[in-house]
Amino acid sequence: MSSPKSPLAPTALPNLPEIAGVIRRVARAGYKAWERSDLTFVELAPGTTVAGVLTQSKCPSPEVEWCRKALVLGQARALVVNAGNSNAFTGDRGRTAVEAIAARTAQHLGCAPSDVYVASTGVIGVPLPVDKAEAGLDAAFASAPVGWVDAAETIMTTDTFAKVATQRAVVGGRTVELVGVIKGSGMIAPDMATMLGFIFTNAAVDPAFLQRALAAANTKTFSCITVDSDTSTSDTVLAFATGAAGNPPLAGDEDEGADAFVSALSALCMELALLVVRDGEGATKLIEVTVEGAESDRSAHRIAMSIANSPLVKTAIAGEDANWGRVVMAVGKAGEPAERDKLSIRFGATQVAEHGLAVTGYDEAPVTAHLKGSEIAIGVDLGLGEGRATVWTCDLTHGYISINADYRS
Amino acid sequence: MSSPKSPLAPTALPNLPEIAGVIRRVARAGYKAWERSDLTFVELAPGTTVAGVLTQSKCPSPEVEWCRKALVLGQARALVVNAGNSNAFTGDRGRTAVEAIAARTAQHLGCAPSDVYVASTGVIGVPLPVDKAEAGLDAAFASAPVGWVDAAETIMTTDTFAKVATQRAVVGGRTVELVGVIKGSGMIAPDMATMLGFIFTNAAVDPAFLQRALAAANTKTFSCITVDSDTSTSDTVLAFATGAAGNPPLAGDEDEGADAFVSALSALCMELALLVVRDGEGATKLIEVTVEGAESDRSAHRIAMSIANSPLVKTAIAGEDANWGRVVMAVGKAGEPAERDKLSIRFGATQVAEHGLAVTGYDEAPVTAHLKGSEIAIGVDLGLGEGRATVWTCDLTHGYISINADYRS
Repeated sequence: MSSPKSPLAPTALPNLPEIAGVIRRVARAGYKAWERSDLTFVELAPGTTVAGVLTQSKCPSPEVEWCRKALVLGQARALVVNAGNSNAFTGDRGRTAVEAIAARTAQHLGCAPSDVYVASTGVIGVPLPVDKAEAGLDAAFASAPVGWVDAAETIMTTDTFAKVATQRAVVGGRTVELVGVIKGSGMIAPDMATMLGFIFTNAAVDPAFLQRALAAANTKTFSCITVDSDTSTSDTVLAFATGAAGNPPLAGDEDEGADAFVSALSALCMELALLVVRDGEGATKLIEVTVEGAESDRSAHRIAMSIANSPLVKTAIAGEDANWGRVVMAVGKAGEPAERDKLSIRFGATQVAEHGLAVTGYDEAPVTAHLKGSEIAIGVDLGLGEGRATVWTCDLTHGYISINADYRS
Repeated sequence: MSSPKSPLAPTALPNLPEIAGVIRRVARAGYKAWERSDLTFVELAPGTTVAGVLTQSKCPSPEVEWCRKALVLGQARALVVNAGNSNAFTGDRGRTAVEAIAARTAQHLGCAPSDVYVASTGVIGVPLPVDKAEAGLDAAFASAPVGWVDAAETIMTTDTFAKVATQRAVVGGRTVELVGVIKGSGMIAPDMATMLGFIFTNAAVDPAFLQRALAAANTKTFSCITVDSDTSTSDTVLAFATGAAGNPPLAGDEDEGADAFVSALSALCMELALLVVRDGEGATKLIEVTVEGAESDRSAHRIAMSIANSPLVKTAIAGEDANWGRVVMAVGKAGEPAERDKLSIRFGATQVAEHGLAVTGYDEAPVTAHLKGSEIAIGVDLGLGEGRATVWTCDLTHGYISINADYRS
C-alpha cells in the first residue's frame, strides 16, 4: 500500500487484448480507510465456463467454500472481488455476506446466484460489511467499464504493483487470447492455489477440460512458489472461458488446439506466479531453486520447498552470502531421502559442493557476482534418482519485518 | 558473538554444584579468528554411563554419526566440544578429524576411542582442521580445570549468554545433583534434539534407563522449541551419569527414586530448552503456544509448531499486534484436523475468538498490555478432542535478519 514498488517489478506492462464477453467495472466500497477502488465486478457473457483451484487450508474463507460449491456446475456469469477484508473466520455473518453479494449480482444480471463467483482478500476475522458491499456493487453496476490494469490494481492489498499477463494460442483454426490478473505478496505458500488469481479467455472450453488443464498448470506454477511459507485462508485461482472466439469447444486432449491451449494456459500461470514472487514482501532477489536426482518428483518438490522456505537460506541470499551449508541444512531437514555423500550444490553455474563436500578451491568470484544480481539460481543434485522440481521464492529482508510487524494498524 | 545480550536473558546465574567425576578444561584451538576459548574437554570418571538424542537430519555431521555409534555401548570417559566449525558436510576429512580427536583423547586417558564423545558447532562445510584440534586438545589436557560457566561460554557461537541449569533429586536415599549446559540461538527447530546440550549427574544410572528418561524428557522439551524452523545438522543432547553419589543404580521405573530422577531430568531439560529460545536470534519476546482440544497430542503438537514457525505470527508478536487472524491461518495450513467453527483463540488470559469468530466487543486493553510484555501466551482450543501440546518460540525481528544476512563473514 504505502510500500515503494518492488525492485523486482517488471519495467513495463504487456499489451493486453480485450477478451470478448468480459466487462470489468470497479467501485469504492470503503472496506478500509483508503482513497481507492476496492471492489471489482467482472461481468461474463452467458455460456462462460469456469474452473478453479482453491486453498487446502482447513480454515477456508466462506468465499472459498462458496466457489468450491459453484464450481461443480462449471458455469459463470460474474466475478466479484473485495480487497481490504478477507471475510475469513467470520462465522455465519461471513457466509451471509457472500450470499448477499451473490444474490444482488444475480438479480442485476438475471442469473442464478451460483453463477456468481466471489473472492475477498485482506484482514482475517472481521465480517465483510454487507451494507458497504451492496452499496459498492450498486456503484459498480452503474459505472463505466475499466481496463485490465484498473482491475488488477483494485484487487491489490500489500502488493506494490499491478500484476497482469497474457498468452495466445491457435485452437480449432481460431486465435484465442488469455489474460490473467493476480494479487499476492505476503502469506504466500499456496497449497494448490495462490492468493487471488483470475484468468479470462475467449476460447470455448468444456468446464471439465478447463478444470483439468488449470489443475495441471497449477501443479507446476502456483504450487511451486512461496514467499513466507504461510498458506492463506483465501487462496483462489479461477479461469473463465467465454467462448466468444467461436472455436469448436475444447473437451479432450485429442481436440485440435488442445495442446496449444494447455501450453498457453500453463505459461500464463507461470508468468502470474512469478509476478507474485517478484512482489514478495520485502523482496530484493528472485530465487529459483531446482532439485534434481531425487527419488521422485514429489520428493524433489518437498526438498526444494524446504530450501525455499528456510529463513537461513533466504537471509543468506539477502546478504549475498554463498552460504551453501545452509542449503545442506535445508536438504537434511526436509525428511526426504538424501545421502550426504552424494549431494552436489551450485549457485548460478558454479558447482560449490560435490559428493558431500566443498569443491576444492572453487572460484568464488563468479558466485559472488551471481549473488549480487537480482535473479538467483540454486541447484541441488541428490544423485539418487530421476526426480526433479523447480520452485521460486524471494529473499528474507528487513522489509518483510517492517511490513508485517505493523500490518493490521 | 558481537551481538548484545538478549533482552530475555536471565538476570542471574543459578548456583551450580560440582558433580563428582566431572572435570572441565578449555583451550583456544583457534577455529575462528577470535580471542576466546573454543575447545571444551570434559573428563568423566570411569564407570560413567551415557545417553543421547541426536538430530534426525538426513545430512548429519560426522560427530553425530560418531556419537550415534558410541551410544550403543552406553559408556563414556570424555566429551570434546568444538565451537566455530560444525565439521558438517565435509566428507572423509570430517570423519578423519573426529577419529583423530577421539584417538588423541583416548590415548591421554587410557580408554577406548568409543568412550570419547565429540560435538562441533559453527559453519557448515569446512573440514575441522585436525592440527588445530590436536594442539587445542594438548593445551586443554595441560590446563587447570574450570567452572561450569567457563565451559558453557566456550561452547557458544551466536549465543549472547551462557546457558546453564541445575536440578536435584533424592534417589535411593542419596541426594543426586544434575547440571546441564547448552548452546543454541539460530538454526533451532530440533528434531528430537537441540543444537548442543550436555547434562551431567552424579547419580548412578543404568544407560538404558538413562536413555529412556532422556528420550521421554526430550519429547516434551527440546522437541517443543523452535527459533526459525531450521533444523541443524549437528543437534546433540548427551546425558552423562558418573555414579559418584553412590545410590543403587537406577535401572527401572520401580526403583526407589526413579520418579524423582526422571522429574528432575525433565525439569532440567525444560530449563535448558527455554534458555535457547530466550537467546533466539534477534528475540525480544518469548512466546508460549498451547493447543488444546486436538484429535491427538501429536496433532496438537503439529498445529502448535505451525503457529510457532509462522513468520506472520512471529512478526505480529514483534509488532505487539493482536493479529489473531494469523493464528487462524497457521492452524489452517497445518494440515491437521481442525474445524473453523469450533476454533477458539486467546492471547494471555483474554479470549479473542470463540467458535469460529471474533468475540464481540472483547476488551483489547488487557491484550495490548499482555503483548507489550516480554512473555507472550497464545492459546488455541480446537474443540475436537483431548489432544494437547505446548511449544515455545520467540518473535521474528530485524535482529534476526541482521544476524543472518552476514553471519559467515
